[in-house]
Amino acid sequence: MPPDAVQVVAFDADDTLWHTERVFVEAKERFAALLAPYHSPDWIESRLYDTEMRNLQHYGYGIKSFTLSMIETAVQLTEGRIRGQEIQQLLELAKDMLAMPIHLMDGVEETVARLAGSFRLMIVTKGDLFDQESKIARSGLGDYFDHVEVVSSKDRATYEDITTRVGVSPRRFVMVGDSLRSDVLPVIEVGGNAIHVPSDTSWEHEQVPPDVAARYEFLRAESIRDVPRLLGELPG
Amino acid sequence: MPPDAVQVVAFDADDTLWHTERVFVEAKERFAALLAPYHSPDWIESRLYDTEMRNLQHYGYGIKSFTLSMIETAVQLTEGRIRGQEIQQLLELAKDMLAMPIHLMDGVEETVARLAGSFRLMIVTKGDLFDQESKIARSGLGDYFDHVEVVSSKDRATYEDITTRVGVSPRRFVMVGDSLRSDVLPVIEVGGNAIHVPSDTSWEHEQVPPDVAARYEFLRAESIRDVPRLLGELPG
Repeated sequence: MPPDAVQVVAFDADDTLWHTERVFVEAKERFAALLAPYHSPDWIESRLYDTEMRNLQHYGYGIKSFTLSMIETAVQLTEGRIRGQEIQQLLELAKDMLAMPIHLMDGVEETVARLAGSFRLMIVTKGDLFDQESKIARSGLGDYFDHVEVVSSKDRATYEDITTRVGVSPRRFVMVGDSLRSDVLPVIEVGGNAIHVPSDTSWEHEQVPPDVAARYEFLRAESIRDVPRLLGELPG
Repeated sequence: MPPDAVQVVAFDADDTLWHTERVFVEAKERFAALLAPYHSPDWIESRLYDTEMRNLQHYGYGIKSFTLSMIETAVQLTEGRIRGQEIQQLLELAKDMLAMPIHLMDGVEETVARLAGSFRLMIVTKGDLFDQESKIARSGLGDYFDHVEVVSSKDRATYEDITTRVGVSPRRFVMVGDSLRSDVLPVIEVGGNAIHVPSDTSWEHEQVPPDVAARYEFLRAESIRDVPRLLGELPG
């Protein structure tokens, strides 16, 4: 397949276009500090993770879901002794997270601007609709993208649906993202292409065992700056 | 315009296809009962409404947003004296709301099934992506609809974007819904058609003064059962 056969380049947003995970890492530190009189930081973080996983089926992804899980964990770990003022601090933490300035990953703006001249660009991101739209607006990148899809999960059906909606064959579709589990493997499974750009922080839930990843054929980039070059190396 | 010129019929979901507002009304009653030792029900409801309005810019719509606003209001109205166990009850209330059985409005299934043979059908709904997708799945109606759009607001730009995305001229697009503010007025403003199906409960925030509504030309239905007939009465 000649390079120009690629029509649509889709980007994950969180920790691909801009930093997000470190916002959660900092929030977890503030949460552990708040509950420090009751438990050790490791125990608090581990219980919070359990609550988040248990609540995914009820709440889905995003900061509001994370906040409800923090509050639930705080009530449990203090056996109900948590004070209203501490709950208020968790609500303020949530609003801080939602209003955080957007820090683009290194090289994002120039790369996106360059690719926008040659391809239809998309954002495909999991998470909370309202929060993701707000971040896209605040990022200043919105005008480079022809389509934005905020989805509740990223599996085979999601990518089949998206390529159908934008009218592109999966083999002419490339997904760029930091999560093997969400941005790479399911795209390969539906016959699409993927470029993995690992981030320095990665949520435990998104990790894939190396022997599983090794069964899939995809490109790896050190940085998003490598994406234009790698698009020329995609197999036919 | 002959009736067959209508190509796409879009439905609001909450309180148009299925009952939702009464779930919030019941939740507000449980919330007022929980705080009854502290304040009167009217005062609690009014403060909760203020918190919700103030938080719309941070949280957007949906049950998770509503729950965070309930918790914030509970902390404020008790001056921090709310107990962990009471917060836990609010979290359980949220999960009850999210898992509520879907009660279709009267006549919905037969009407949607009938229209699906003649038109492309859509759902255009505000709210939380994860929750709305879950409700569509649980409603059993998903297969009748060609497109589902969960949006963070319903204004002119939203309807311009949606009609472009699905490739239909606004004059061949009809929106059916219970909210004048969200489902009718902005659709008329972009040159589309609208059928207003009032519901027995309607959120204060969605109401429009009668003199404003009178400036717009749209059809009114007593029930969703009237929609097939009214589609034949649309002006050319």
